[in-house]
Amino acid sequence: MASLLDNIHNPRNLDALSRDELIQLAEEIRSKLIEVTYKNGGHLASNLGVVELTIAIHRIFDSPKDKILFDVSHQSYVHKLLTGRNDERFERIRQTGGYSGFCNPDESEHDVFCVGHAGTALSTALGLCAARNHLNQEHKIVVVLGDGALACGPTMEALNNITSETRQLTVILNDNDYSIDRNIGAMATYLNKIIVSRPYKNITGSIGNALSKSKIGLKFWRMCRKVKLALKDLLLSSSFFEHYALRYIGPIDGHNLTQVEEYLTLCREANYPILLHVKTTKGKGNFQASADPALFHRVGPISSKQTPFMKDILGQTVANLAKANKKIIGVTAAMASGTGLSHLRDALPEQYVDVGIAEEHAVTLCAGLAKGGMLPICAIYSTFMQRAFDQIVHDICLQNLPTIFCLDRAGLSANDGPTHHGLFDISYLRCLPRAIIMQPKNGEELSAMLTAALEYHAPVFIRYNSGYNYNTHSVGPHIELGRSEIVKEGRNVCLLALGCCVGIAQQVDDILGGNCGIINGRFIKPLDEQMLCDIAAKYGTILTLEDNVLVGGFGSSVMEFYGDNNIETHVLRIGWPDKFIEHGSSEEILRQIYALDAEAIAKKISMAID
Amino acid sequence: MASLLDNIHNPRNLDALSRDELIQLAEEIRSKLIEVTYKNGGHLASNLGVVELTIAIHRIFDSPKDKILFDVSHQSYVHKLLTGRNDERFERIRQTGGYSGFCNPDESEHDVFCVGHAGTALSTALGLCAARNHLNQEHKIVVVLGDGALACGPTMEALNNITSETRQLTVILNDNDYSIDRNIGAMATYLNKIIVSRPYKNITGSIGNALSKSKIGLKFWRMCRKVKLALKDLLLSSSFFEHYALRYIGPIDGHNLTQVEEYLTLCREANYPILLHVKTTKGKGNFQASADPALFHRVGPISSKQTPFMKDILGQTVANLAKANKKIIGVTAAMASGTGLSHLRDALPEQYVDVGIAEEHAVTLCAGLAKGGMLPICAIYSTFMQRAFDQIVHDICLQNLPTIFCLDRAGLSANDGPTHHGLFDISYLRCLPRAIIMQPKNGEELSAMLTAALEYHAPVFIRYNSGYNYNTHSVGPHIELGRSEIVKEGRNVCLLALGCCVGIAQQVDDILGGNCGIINGRFIKPLDEQMLCDIAAKYGTILTLEDNVLVGGFGSSVMEFYGDNNIETHVLRIGWPDKFIEHGSSEEILRQIYALDAEAIAKKISMAID
Repeated sequence: MASLLDNIHNPRNLDALSRDELIQLAEEIRSKLIEVTYKNGGHLASNLGVVELTIAIHRIFDSPKDKILFDVSHQSYVHKLLTGRNDERFERIRQTGGYSGFCNPDESEHDVFCVGHAGTALSTALGLCAARNHLNQEHKIVVVLGDGALACGPTMEALNNITSETRQLTVILNDNDYSIDRNIGAMATYLNKIIVSRPYKNITGSIGNALSKSKIGLKFWRMCRKVKLALKDLLLSSSFFEHYALRYIGPIDGHNLTQVEEYLTLCREANYPILLHVKTTKGKGNFQASADPALFHRVGPISSKQTPFMKDILGQTVANLAKANKKIIGVTAAMASGTGLSHLRDALPEQYVDVGIAEEHAVTLCAGLAKGGMLPICAIYSTFMQRAFDQIVHDICLQNLPTIFCLDRAGLSANDGPTHHGLFDISYLRCLPRAIIMQPKNGEELSAMLTAALEYHAPVFIRYNSGYNYNTHSVGPHIELGRSEIVKEGRNVCLLALGCCVGIAQQVDDILGGNCGIINGRFIKPLDEQMLCDIAAKYGTILTLEDNVLVGGFGSSVMEFYGDNNIETHVLRIGWPDKFIEHGSSEEILRQIYALDAEAIAKKISMAID
Repeated sequence: MASLLDNIHNPRNLDALSRDELIQLAEEIRSKLIEVTYKNGGHLASNLGVVELTIAIHRIFDSPKDKILFDVSHQSYVHKLLTGRNDERFERIRQTGGYSGFCNPDESEHDVFCVGHAGTALSTALGLCAARNHLNQEHKIVVVLGDGALACGPTMEALNNITSETRQLTVILNDNDYSIDRNIGAMATYLNKIIVSRPYKNITGSIGNALSKSKIGLKFWRMCRKVKLALKDLLLSSSFFEHYALRYIGPIDGHNLTQVEEYLTLCREANYPILLHVKTTKGKGNFQASADPALFHRVGPISSKQTPFMKDILGQTVANLAKANKKIIGVTAAMASGTGLSHLRDALPEQYVDVGIAEEHAVTLCAGLAKGGMLPICAIYSTFMQRAFDQIVHDICLQNLPTIFCLDRAGLSANDGPTHHGLFDISYLRCLPRAIIMQPKNGEELSAMLTAALEYHAPVFIRYNSGYNYNTHSVGPHIELGRSEIVKEGRNVCLLALGCCVGIAQQVDDILGGNCGIINGRFIKPLDEQMLCDIAAKYGTILTLEDNVLVGGFGSSVMEFYGDNNIETHVLRIGWPDKFIEHGSSEEILRQIYALDAEAIAKKISMAID
């Protein structure tokens, strides 16, 4: 059979396809998704679930004139395939030179925002609506929102600000029971209740089918729009969304293309904001992915060797510590698997909380737990911790509450790119009074730091890279507060490195002939001031190595110390430049691009000390 | 009449008072509130509204065993008076040596958290509940939540996480129609609908009164608890809160002490989470304050001379710019008066948006507006901008969207203290790629910077102190991107100052004999590198002056520049230390305490260059 997908160069190519051809197209897309994500890694299950939905959106709405916003946008692969990106770069999605795994306006005019954090789409859509209304434009705005986004504070803030003046806005609630892990909370329960009490098959039977079969059916829809009373019966009301200014329609079957198109047509023609509740199956069309969507939410390349990740060490250590101390409680925001706290959940469910995609609540909940006498350990990726910055300042540090925050994906998240890199946390955390900030060079040290942190009785932040795990030097029995570790003594040049950069320092030292001193910094705050004095006295040049932006980072704090104390030294700072870093095939490749690999660093040192 | 208030040393002293005495006590408290806030400034209207409510809470619950949490806690003055703080320090509330204007555990064991940001109480309460349940304790947890908090994302995230397992939790919704300015949004409309459709007087008539008159009535309540069916009729159901696990009761009259006590008793005895909807009148008992609660939400000392504040200059400038350019739209988060955008609202309401206490939505809304072709100007206090940090990173800077953020209360917010000081924003903003950060030395320059920022087509942050406004040097016609201003040339020492610190630099120069050079830094990012090279060549010592923490601040960025470029200089950094700064009578007094006033700075310079 000839490929239909290969003939789709823009969404308008969908218009002429027959029902049967659309069904074939959906099959082709699913095959492509499975093939490409198994090769490159990526969000498989979430994309398999929205194949028909995305086709329908692009048939009914007219992108790029109409604006289609995908919340989080990890479900945007189908959209990419339908908007002229079914090419060689899609084959290398999430790799250097390939497309991003998220929406990105640099790739296509069909992508409105570059997004990777949940809960932003409704707010941006309201901004787009207001701008459109203000500028007297007429285009439609469509939001595809996962049900997990209803746990996000930002989405709820936006919901509260929808008014009938928002006018033409279609919010598609893509309800698949999962955020990343299975959804929790009152909103998830509520959506399930709707699904159970109003099976969409009945709707299809009673209204949908009858209307779908003919042009007259569609005319009837349009007529109904004008008759408010009739409409009220058609729009199955849902009291929750009615509290906000959204008219509710649903639930409908997100895999029934005909039905989805009908309802989207209704939304397109209406002049008020509508929420269309679409039920989809995450991982649809792939046995493994639909059987365990949390596991297959995102897959790694199938061929890649599975080494123990930092997250597993984190999870196992927390589980062990929690067994010994009943006051320990683990907190995550929809990322049990991603952070490794699934180990704790499975071992000690009563000492584990998942709050959904609600980082702000997660952190303030920890404040309450700590104040109440518990020892919370909160695992949130570095980039998502940005969401809870005020809570860290106001609810944790100001209260001086002992809580341990575990920031996985500090440094690069290479395949994901700029929305997911954790390159700012040293800068935004070290300005906070009372914060203790550490970074382990390997899994063994991560485990030791967790154990030690329980004794610090302060807000503690442990940042680490997910898998870039050089394990070249053993760890002493105890991590002493504010004390670094001498990896090796040397002459002339001292490499003062953080975390995974200790491994890079060792490579640099090898290249330079093995004469460098190497310090494992361990503490970003408090600084090991004695060590800093010692190395300033001993070495002519001090090189700081960190996987954070240089602006306000670790090297900056070292310069502050030397400057404030009038200690003359030559400090060379190595870290990420003042720009957003793209995605790439691996951390190594991105380091080469930015001249931050061992070779390039060694070259810089040679030039600087010449 | 003898003072009753003077005999209240702890909440249990309330137990023996008769109804008439309690009414007298409420009167005495109101007099005290008016007297003290007129003298010191402070949150008048919000406290006048909760007099009876707070008395009732302390009669029915047993603080400090039971935990009472006030969201934002600007309504905690009555609580302070009833918990042993009706003393000389209360007379000097918000002044140096006086009590804080917010809850503070350092003051009293009756204060659970030190809070000043909205929307945190429900999350902390859930943490306290979980800790209590986990540790098998039995105390009650009470939250007093303003209706404005229902616009806050964090509150909604917490709501979504309440379950019946939360058990004993009383959430008192103190509904007075106002956040700080009048509430907006769907939730406010919804609460009004409840109030209108279910006047509380009827409830009092039909149920409340009958039960309140006797012990048998109360017994009846308790009996009803056990009969689920009967209870369902008693608890006036409200579908919104029922979506969450909260049982809804209300609305009741928050000024009817007897009624409030009855219902609180019911809440105390129940073993599930309850939301008690209490209607209060903001500013109750004071004609001026109840007639205009937004104005009297917080009053300044009545005697203080009213100089033009930066916020008025901001508001007037934005209004003028918006008149000339219809694409300009002002965005605030419940702070029209506080930020000065009320000028824009009054002049051009269609170019103004208030989203309620929803900073995250405000910032992402701006992203949508900017993407849609508008020019958003978003005014949020420095400390509250922390709430939207991720939105600044992910939705503004990553998208490179032209939006102007106006951060009032950068530097100290002296009377408010640690929850409100804006001492971190330079550190948390300057690490972000594409951010342009400025600080004007006076109102004239603020106005010029706003005008200039419209031409930068980038994310721009203008930070400024509310009123600390030395106006000693005129401003050139145009603020050039990345260019500082030479205030005066000098010898040996160069004072490189930001914003209001330019005025301090002039005082320092006077003390030192007038030989210092003075630079108005203007740009925190991008740095004026040419100027930095020039002053390094010309002066022996460079003193940076900023009203941010030193860690990662402006002086830190100056050190980074010199260090990275191997320019040898002597840099002395003046700014706030690495600790949370308490409240005080004025910025001047806090500067004296921390040796950051002109005298102390001059002394430091003399010592350093000797």
